[in-house]
Amino acid sequence: MYKGIGASAGIGIGKVVVIKEQSLDYKKETITDAEAEKKRLSEAIEVFIDKTTKMVEAMKVTAGEQESEILEGHILMIQDPAIKEQIDAKIDDEKINAEAAVEEACDFFAQIFAMAEDELTQQRASDLGDIKTRLIKILLGIEEVDISAVPEGTVLVAEDLTPSMTAGINPANVEGVLTEIGGKTSHSAIICRSMEIPAVLSVENIVSIVKDGDVVVLDGATGEAYVNPEDSVLEDYKAKKAAYLEEKAALSKFIGQASQTADGRVVELVANIGGPDEAARVVECDGEGVGLFRTEFLFMDRDSVPTEEEQFKAYKTVAETLEGKPVIIRTLDIGGDKALPYLGLETEENPFLGFRAVRFCLKRPDIYRPQLRALLRASAFGKIRIMVPLVTCVDELRAVKALLEEIKGELDAEGIAYNKDVEVGVMMETAAASLIADILAKEADFFSIGTNDLTGYTMAADRGNSDVAYLYSAYNPAVLRSIKNIIGAANKEGIMAGMCGEAASDPLLVPVLLAFGLNEFSVSATAILATRKVMSLWTMDEAKALAEEVMQLTTEAEVKALLEERARS
Amino acid sequence: MYKGIGASAGIGIGKVVVIKEQSLDYKKETITDAEAEKKRLSEAIEVFIDKTTKMVEAMKVTAGEQESEILEGHILMIQDPAIKEQIDAKIDDEKINAEAAVEEACDFFAQIFAMAEDELTQQRASDLGDIKTRLIKILLGIEEVDISAVPEGTVLVAEDLTPSMTAGINPANVEGVLTEIGGKTSHSAIICRSMEIPAVLSVENIVSIVKDGDVVVLDGATGEAYVNPEDSVLEDYKAKKAAYLEEKAALSKFIGQASQTADGRVVELVANIGGPDEAARVVECDGEGVGLFRTEFLFMDRDSVPTEEEQFKAYKTVAETLEGKPVIIRTLDIGGDKALPYLGLETEENPFLGFRAVRFCLKRPDIYRPQLRALLRASAFGKIRIMVPLVTCVDELRAVKALLEEIKGELDAEGIAYNKDVEVGVMMETAAASLIADILAKEADFFSIGTNDLTGYTMAADRGNSDVAYLYSAYNPAVLRSIKNIIGAANKEGIMAGMCGEAASDPLLVPVLLAFGLNEFSVSATAILATRKVMSLWTMDEAKALAEEVMQLTTEAEVKALLEERARS
Repeated sequence: MYKGIGASAGIGIGKVVVIKEQSLDYKKETITDAEAEKKRLSEAIEVFIDKTTKMVEAMKVTAGEQESEILEGHILMIQDPAIKEQIDAKIDDEKINAEAAVEEACDFFAQIFAMAEDELTQQRASDLGDIKTRLIKILLGIEEVDISAVPEGTVLVAEDLTPSMTAGINPANVEGVLTEIGGKTSHSAIICRSMEIPAVLSVENIVSIVKDGDVVVLDGATGEAYVNPEDSVLEDYKAKKAAYLEEKAALSKFIGQASQTADGRVVELVANIGGPDEAARVVECDGEGVGLFRTEFLFMDRDSVPTEEEQFKAYKTVAETLEGKPVIIRTLDIGGDKALPYLGLETEENPFLGFRAVRFCLKRPDIYRPQLRALLRASAFGKIRIMVPLVTCVDELRAVKALLEEIKGELDAEGIAYNKDVEVGVMMETAAASLIADILAKEADFFSIGTNDLTGYTMAADRGNSDVAYLYSAYNPAVLRSIKNIIGAANKEGIMAGMCGEAASDPLLVPVLLAFGLNEFSVSATAILATRKVMSLWTMDEAKALAEEVMQLTTEAEVKALLEERARS
Repeated sequence: MYKGIGASAGIGIGKVVVIKEQSLDYKKETITDAEAEKKRLSEAIEVFIDKTTKMVEAMKVTAGEQESEILEGHILMIQDPAIKEQIDAKIDDEKINAEAAVEEACDFFAQIFAMAEDELTQQRASDLGDIKTRLIKILLGIEEVDISAVPEGTVLVAEDLTPSMTAGINPANVEGVLTEIGGKTSHSAIICRSMEIPAVLSVENIVSIVKDGDVVVLDGATGEAYVNPEDSVLEDYKAKKAAYLEEKAALSKFIGQASQTADGRVVELVANIGGPDEAARVVECDGEGVGLFRTEFLFMDRDSVPTEEEQFKAYKTVAETLEGKPVIIRTLDIGGDKALPYLGLETEENPFLGFRAVRFCLKRPDIYRPQLRALLRASAFGKIRIMVPLVTCVDELRAVKALLEEIKGELDAEGIAYNKDVEVGVMMETAAASLIADILAKEADFFSIGTNDLTGYTMAADRGNSDVAYLYSAYNPAVLRSIKNIIGAANKEGIMAGMCGEAASDPLLVPVLLAFGLNEFSVSATAILATRKVMSLWTMDEAKALAEEVMQLTTEAEVKALLEERARS
């Protein structure tokens, strides 16, 4: 058994095709006719752009619009005058052949990109490697590996899947992917997920271990893989694969359906996202909106606060992608445990109990106002709702609303469009917020319960501390009571009671939350259909009977045992 | 105006008497008759013991039994064979005179003590300095300063007040004390407080600044002092002094009285202590018991876990000192923010949300069992109650009770006495405990609300973090609701509802807590009479009317303003 990172769920069973890097041996030569060499280069670039454009078109079909953007980016990069000029200069000044000039120039830029702290720029370094290889191949007249030609039932094995390789994949023929490089967020992972190809990445030396024709089974959820397994293992995986496909088919029946109980109580089923890139995935997964858009990514891996304009574009993108479906955007939730030197946050003894989120934002209007302004401006382009994190007293909600009113006045004066009725809600995640839920419900437009932090603060247990992990559970009677209280207060005032913590997609808890009166469930995009299915398995009366029984129990263990006993699937 | 550390409350107005260190000049001489020199030493030590014994007797009257123990300690130290032998050896081997031998030997031991990490041993170094000076004075035939002879209305000014100096103080003549050295916990501070002499310590260079006969005013609460002040300042301080004495006299009327409301609702008024030394002070201040005995001191400033025997002695001492009055002892409340290397606690990202208190204890029976055994054994000597800190689920209370039952079985088998009905209660200080107060009340023998941590956890605000200090307030509606809920649950089950956090002695909150149904108030010893007085100013109906108004309010600021408006004194 080989162990890697499970990067795209599903069971793959098939025969290995190893994708080996082709030799790019060429001689670095001194040339005499620089103009002729630059013409060779220009022609190669044209071929590159032409081929890549075709790959982009193919990929839009196999992997989707968004994933094809990576390759579109390669076209933009090779067209970047800075890169072309650098290669030309090398040919002119050093009188070297185009192959050598391309290699040196691309390596030079890749090196610079690789030094960057943020993942996006680092990614561009690896993109440049892909571009360099393909451009040199074109110059040398070497045909690229044609992955599209692999036979049905293939498991692709490679050191890494470059964007240009993935472009050629025909998902109908590829059963799985095994690589030596990459993690859950790498290009290859994203593309395998969007093509629904099971993938296990970062398996050490796998290219040397297997040879063409070997039988491989892999589990893209657990990250496990077997090469030429025993019959029993093979049978086992065949059964797993059948079960997985059956479950998937069962879930696919819920695409386009309402999110409702067996007796027709309809709720909203939306998704949590961490950046504008993920918005399209929500639509693909049949999400009914975004229940939590975390804005921290905009502030990370950079040296300065993002401008209002940058933020506006990100918020607008998500709003437009969701096409009028609701998008709850949480204002900056950051504190002393994050190293963002430009924010001037000090390291704290207990960062979770410190100067963070709305506390920080209200003291730093220089940072908060541009975000709120960007949110208001973006509200003209979709159904944006603003959510305030870490509220512990009504004063904080009032302060944010006052700031928004001020900014609305400015926008009016400047004639800039925004949604005058933009909703402002509270992320319910502290014990204090739960205790004053009735007070907050009178002034908030919606609640969204952040069960992750609510559990941590209620149980006084840091989620990241393994020594107290046994206390960190939403099944604790204290946490369930707090959740019930919050939902009850929202229902009483007639505002939306949502939930964006992990409990919202816990199949054991879904009926209990329905019984409490939760109106909106925000889950990860991949959990949408499964959550919709669980909802469909309960009538409200059944859910209420279960919740009543659960609320009689006094310990976490009893709650968990009862919920497991009553679980439906 | 000079600023120092206010170490003993009260206003002092008087004329300066500077206590200057007398010159102890002597010649280090070579002696020939070692035996004769050792005899001189022995005689001096006898005189020392004789004088000190008399000082102890005098001090028991002026400063109290406990404070006189410091000087009794000097007798024990000089009788320590190790010290005497060291001095003798110097006379024998180095043939030096007794004065030099005393100085060198005392300095040697003082140096060793000073290197210790714990305050108690360090204090012994300063004690040895006092002993050395007095012994050399006796050898030289120099009379000690007779502080007892200072005229009425004196403010004593000295570099430091040594224990032997304070022994001579006649509180009737001393209006105040000013020193260059010392803090709130130094000997001089403790003795001034027990003699009720206002004192300001650590005023830089004060001995050089003043001269005999200067008029000085000082405020032992704020740490402020004026030398030869203007008339307006003098008048001001006279008025302050009169007000202070009036308040003190008014409070003294409450000595020996029941702790009750104006209409006769009686509650328990007890004190928080940090070590067995403070138990006597509780009795002196007319406390009706101990509501919180913190046991951490036993585990700090040392290299290993205290033995069961050491703990037993400490718990027994407190139980006996309180003579049958209730003593709530909290089991070890320690975590990753304390550097106790021998406990093997790791530094944590968020220690307040970490592996601490009962969580740690239940995983470390090697540490917890000896404490519980010591507590059970000590329960035979007074009314000890056991309190479990940081409870978030009923499982924790059950686990502690099960452990206690196990240990009771052992004690039965060994024929060791203990109180079979020892009460086991919960320190209510987490949001979770508040949410399941009704569940806990069915299995706990009492509650004591720790408002300090309850406020911090509820508001998700670290008390020690100045950036979020504005949120850390028990006046927050969320915190008040939580307190009310806890008290209500205790009342419903008929168990004691106590409070050991700072809110219990907040004069603004006392009527509200009475209205909620709090049965027991545990405050600092010095706050007992003032709290008893506040209670006497309210009828239950008035308190309930106030509480009802308070609970309608939605913000901390509104609550604080209303309570201040309605405050009685």
